[in-house]
Amino acid sequence: MKLLIIGGSDAGISAALRAREVAPDVDVTMVLADEYPNFSICGLPFFLSGEVPDWSRLAHRSRAEIESHGITLFTGHVAEAIETRSNEVRVHYRGERRVLAYDKLIVATGATPIRPPIAGLDLAGVYVLHTMDDSFLLNEHLQTAHSAVIIGAGYIGVEMADALTNRGMAVALVERLPSVLTTVDPEFGDLIEAELERHGVTVRTNTTINAIVRTDSGVRVSGPDGFDHAADIALVVVGVRPNSTIAEAAGALLGYADAIRVVPTMATSLPDLFAAGDCVETRHRLLKRNVYLPLGTTAHKQGRVAGENAVGGSATFKGAVGTQAVKIFGRVVAGTGLTERRAKDAGFNVRVTENRTPDHKSYYPGSSEMRVRIVGEASTGQLLGAQILGAWGSEVAKRIDVFATALYHGMRVAELTDLDLSYTPPLSSPWDPIQMATQAWTAAAQSSVSQEG
Amino acid sequence: MKLLIIGGSDAGISAALRAREVAPDVDVTMVLADEYPNFSICGLPFFLSGEVPDWSRLAHRSRAEIESHGITLFTGHVAEAIETRSNEVRVHYRGERRVLAYDKLIVATGATPIRPPIAGLDLAGVYVLHTMDDSFLLNEHLQTAHSAVIIGAGYIGVEMADALTNRGMAVALVERLPSVLTTVDPEFGDLIEAELERHGVTVRTNTTINAIVRTDSGVRVSGPDGFDHAADIALVVVGVRPNSTIAEAAGALLGYADAIRVVPTMATSLPDLFAAGDCVETRHRLLKRNVYLPLGTTAHKQGRVAGENAVGGSATFKGAVGTQAVKIFGRVVAGTGLTERRAKDAGFNVRVTENRTPDHKSYYPGSSEMRVRIVGEASTGQLLGAQILGAWGSEVAKRIDVFATALYHGMRVAELTDLDLSYTPPLSSPWDPIQMATQAWTAAAQSSVSQEG
Repeated sequence: MKLLIIGGSDAGISAALRAREVAPDVDVTMVLADEYPNFSICGLPFFLSGEVPDWSRLAHRSRAEIESHGITLFTGHVAEAIETRSNEVRVHYRGERRVLAYDKLIVATGATPIRPPIAGLDLAGVYVLHTMDDSFLLNEHLQTAHSAVIIGAGYIGVEMADALTNRGMAVALVERLPSVLTTVDPEFGDLIEAELERHGVTVRTNTTINAIVRTDSGVRVSGPDGFDHAADIALVVVGVRPNSTIAEAAGALLGYADAIRVVPTMATSLPDLFAAGDCVETRHRLLKRNVYLPLGTTAHKQGRVAGENAVGGSATFKGAVGTQAVKIFGRVVAGTGLTERRAKDAGFNVRVTENRTPDHKSYYPGSSEMRVRIVGEASTGQLLGAQILGAWGSEVAKRIDVFATALYHGMRVAELTDLDLSYTPPLSSPWDPIQMATQAWTAAAQSSVSQEG
Repeated sequence: MKLLIIGGSDAGISAALRAREVAPDVDVTMVLADEYPNFSICGLPFFLSGEVPDWSRLAHRSRAEIESHGITLFTGHVAEAIETRSNEVRVHYRGERRVLAYDKLIVATGATPIRPPIAGLDLAGVYVLHTMDDSFLLNEHLQTAHSAVIIGAGYIGVEMADALTNRGMAVALVERLPSVLTTVDPEFGDLIEAELERHGVTVRTNTTINAIVRTDSGVRVSGPDGFDHAADIALVVVGVRPNSTIAEAAGALLGYADAIRVVPTMATSLPDLFAAGDCVETRHRLLKRNVYLPLGTTAHKQGRVAGENAVGGSATFKGAVGTQAVKIFGRVVAGTGLTERRAKDAGFNVRVTENRTPDHKSYYPGSSEMRVRIVGEASTGQLLGAQILGAWGSEVAKRIDVFATALYHGMRVAELTDLDLSYTPPLSSPWDPIQMATQAWTAAAQSSVSQEG
């Protein structure tokens, strides 16, 4: 049996490894457009910051390691079309056309950066990061650049603001929305903005950009809200959209945000064709519908399911809750589930509390303030989401994972008080900050009930 | 209504606060034998290490803060007897007898250190830590002491070895059992032993002590296994037993290890009498029976339930899974659920794997090895326990809490692969070390099945 996989990033590799693990006799071939299989795209900001001097270390696995699992790698092969009647994929390799046959096919074509309506996106000095080669070009330019404007203050935007500041560059960060990092509530976005500014980043929210022009030494970035800023380079990182073109052309149904429609087995609407990762829609466990949630963690899970099922298995993707974490200078902010805004938009009757406690017993050296926001359903007490902001090193990210695990199980906020969480004075309190926050939320909910009652 | 609480440590305070929160009109009085309400006993090693110079900072709350919640505090009051027919407690205060009436009573008398069969326990220079005053005496002695023998290598023993080494003292740590810290598997115990020795602690396992004698300058500690060691002081920390005397004398049934028998509402066998904390037996969710598990976290939870129910509520204690964490020099070891030994003793068909991965993407600076041991039921795939050993600062403790939450929900090991856990390169990998470990366990279980099949 021949399993063909288009794409060699998280979902593709995860699928290939799982297929070979479950069915060691299956012939697994992976085609990818570039020369960089299994690279940690999430690591690019740390390469560009100078913290990872050798880009080749960003590979999760070397080519040899991938091949040692019995996976055939065709790099530099651009997939052009899927022929579902003949079970073939037409590819393009150095000007030459090839046809690859398959019994089962997994499409893991990832995402494409969104190109916002800004004049001048293709000018020299303007970077819309997508491929590894884009990163190399940018890195080359960074050797001589001293200033940057970053358009878009999502995860990548704030990480790049940190990264370029770390290089000693002057950085301006511009966001169209009212706060940075809208994957968390604006209260936390504002604190992240303050953290960025404390490190010298100029942050402008509520600011649309519509033009970039060349200057003698670099670029000039401006927009209708009065922003007008010259810098050596501009980075445009306003998000991604699913790269679903090849699957759509083959007749696969698309779903949310034009991502490839999949069922929990990661099967598409076409026979013998699975899809996974940033090109597909993702089941959200809380919203109970499909969304577009391009994340490496989810890509790996979906890839694993697709790989197992392509070789005859019956795994199912259990859905995501949107767990994310990011380090910005000395702070970590992490979230899971729904933000206040998203929960309201989804029609929930939302109650939000924010609790501030030391991350561990304050008598033990090194404690710092940890803020825990809880989004819960006011009438049922259901946990809908949580966000934590704290110092790097204070176990913010894995505290969010306790909430993520609670969300997976549909716990009520009050029930988290019953969890047997670890405590030692250098790392927590007898009631973990998580539980002090769930107790505060529960008390607020009850006091509101008694006031209303 | 009058609620009386005997004991002012974790369980007692938690009960008092909860009672006042739920029923602000209830008259809550707390009697405690010493002058130190609501102290963090778990913090004593850090006071004795010199890391917390001011002992008063060990108070979770000040006396004024406790009283601000409307709780009446009677310190220096030693409870002597409970009269269940008249609903009264007889107490002793500075040579004077008093009688306190109650409608509901909560016994939170804590634990008492075990005095092992060693001659010389009462000599000068020998410390069996129990009260705050014991700690002050020891701390006084530490100002001039240069060496110590610690008998017992449980949590307190290893923390004290760390603490006294931190003061610059020469420390020997002696344990009767084959490895230190038997709350984790011996494989981890051995690594903790190595960490202790790397910092200059002399560790002797499989070594019983039966005699301590005075020397000119200090004490001499010896036993039948040939250990014979002189030091300025000896610390005896071989565990605790429930302080259930007063409840037993009143007619309360005792349970496991002579701890006060309680039902999930924390009611004892006597009317109007609740109990909580280190004096009671604790429901173990995995063993589905009561055990003795004296921990601050559990004491707080039980106290909260007792406090709520004493004023008419209907809360239940949901049971513990035995989650614990400890920092030893630069390492943190944490565990939850059953160790391999305990799982086997409980009759489970156990499979254990240990997985070693970097705590976060190794290309990002500062990564270190994280070891994750998983104890699972071979035939059903049920998660029974997990232990993690890693560097301080690498989110060991809250990763264990993900396992603790999984245990709470009775998850199978393989299901943890479905959890949507957070990832950013400075803090994790797309598959968290937790999930790399659960996948390794699952693969080992499946390969064993196919070999057997």
